[in-house]
Amino acid sequence: MLDKHSIAAQYQQIQNTICQSLQLLDGAAVFEEENWQRTGGGGGCSRVMQSGNLIEKGGVNFSAVHGYLPDAIKKSFNTDNDDFFATGISIVLHPHNPWVPIIHMNIRYFEMDNGLKWFGGGIDVTPHYVIPKDASTFHQHLQAVCNAHQKTFYTKFKAWADDYFYIKHRNETRGIGGIFYDRLTPENTDLSWAGIFEFSKAIGNSFIPIYKNLVAQTRNLAFTPQQKQWQYQRRSRYAEFNLVYDSGTKFGLETDGRIESILMSMPPMAAWVYNYKPLPNSNEANTMDLLRKGIDWVGN
Amino acid sequence: MLDKHSIAAQYQQIQNTICQSLQLLDGAAVFEEENWQRTGGGGGCSRVMQSGNLIEKGGVNFSAVHGYLPDAIKKSFNTDNDDFFATGISIVLHPHNPWVPIIHMNIRYFEMDNGLKWFGGGIDVTPHYVIPKDASTFHQHLQAVCNAHQKTFYTKFKAWADDYFYIKHRNETRGIGGIFYDRLTPENTDLSWAGIFEFSKAIGNSFIPIYKNLVAQTRNLAFTPQQKQWQYQRRSRYAEFNLVYDSGTKFGLETDGRIESILMSMPPMAAWVYNYKPLPNSNEANTMDLLRKGIDWVGN
Repeated sequence: MLDKHSIAAQYQQIQNTICQSLQLLDGAAVFEEENWQRTGGGGGCSRVMQSGNLIEKGGVNFSAVHGYLPDAIKKSFNTDNDDFFATGISIVLHPHNPWVPIIHMNIRYFEMDNGLKWFGGGIDVTPHYVIPKDASTFHQHLQAVCNAHQKTFYTKFKAWADDYFYIKHRNETRGIGGIFYDRLTPENTDLSWAGIFEFSKAIGNSFIPIYKNLVAQTRNLAFTPQQKQWQYQRRSRYAEFNLVYDSGTKFGLETDGRIESILMSMPPMAAWVYNYKPLPNSNEANTMDLLRKGIDWVGN
Repeated sequence: MLDKHSIAAQYQQIQNTICQSLQLLDGAAVFEEENWQRTGGGGGCSRVMQSGNLIEKGGVNFSAVHGYLPDAIKKSFNTDNDDFFATGISIVLHPHNPWVPIIHMNIRYFEMDNGLKWFGGGIDVTPHYVIPKDASTFHQHLQAVCNAHQKTFYTKFKAWADDYFYIKHRNETRGIGGIFYDRLTPENTDLSWAGIFEFSKAIGNSFIPIYKNLVAQTRNLAFTPQQKQWQYQRRSRYAEFNLVYDSGTKFGLETDGRIESILMSMPPMAAWVYNYKPLPNSNEANTMDLLRKGIDWVGN
């Protein structure tokens, strides 16, 4: 049997490894660390870097919280049970260079004291400019990580990410997706609890190699002030998604989590320009054409 | 009896008057106008100016929409009726100069074909730097407009604005408030329908004198790049309020309104800085101390 404290401890170890690698990769900024306690129970360790070489603003948060579940969440989880435990890592990195994509990773474990429990998580990427070759490599990498655990996962979780990271009011996806999964149990995965946990850790451990690959070329590309402005505009869509739709943000707001940790995902600077229309056939227009569901990036 | 088409026509006339005055006041930018149709019924006229002398981004929207009400809205309005009509003006102005406050005004009329109907609206101000003297003058002006129609309004609607424009997850008000009212009927106002409509128009017509007064001195004040940065940071809270809490934004998103019109309220540029703490006794810290409910600005 898995023990929730052991899961939390192993997640925290993954946070440490990721933060060490990210500082090396950035080469300038260091993480500012906040250890916080939640009034209702538990707490976390938030690490955020700002104004780095590579990363304009990025957070790698760990938390392990417990206590009473608010009514709104109980309703959405379809349970009457009050006592919950939730642990996870959440990462969002906003780069300086508009050619480098925004990346998001989350692994999490949730349980109630009546035995209900599950794993959730995923990795997804939001390019300001979609580079199809990089998008394919990214998805192939995710497919390989998934296949090492369960052959059905990539196809299923890629479609789930397309549906989840969708900005309905804009009729556009947040980015090129990735994988998203939730409420994984032995019943719906054909894996043991230990097997699902191994998969969860593999996603966590794949973060650094995946991100290194995404930034290797792009971080050195030159960009114009107009391209930086486009990055600000794309970031505003990221902000809209997180504030209007994101379940993790809602869960954090409704369970009175530490607000600066919950909203560390927000972009350092974002622009809302009224009625902006990219020029036909521009890099910006081509990117918009690729922000839709159902693109088979692996098969490209 | 009031006629909904006559209400809409008179609101549109107020939009015209306000836009003419705002162009004169700005002195540089002109409004870009979009006339749009809503698939489900009705439409609107959106007017937005960007990069003016005074106004960095501002919108003055009129709409008159009708059709079937989505289930989520029916539930929140506690009605089974399907057919609705809604008309109103909505204004948000984001100034260049951080000493000039953001202003918001809305007047609206809603009715269902079963006879349920009401007026709503208000004016509120979000300074990047609270100037107590200006806040008092603003509230005194609102009180005078209210008193000309119904002596009980100002106190009631001022408290309503304090409660409505509250960013729960930040434990701060969006700004210094103003007045907010909703679902006004003869039963809860001791005014006739015509009297409530007159009050609604008086709020609309008070917008220009109130705004002129707020900008007269402040638009000429010098500001530093650090103060501009603070403005970006305060705007991010405005974005959070509108995307997480604002009923008008939710109504627009759920009734498939024109997205660029609904989100014209979003700031032209906004910053999220992690864990920012203003220096003690700074202008920024003093402003934060005044972003709370229950301040008696009129009595100051």
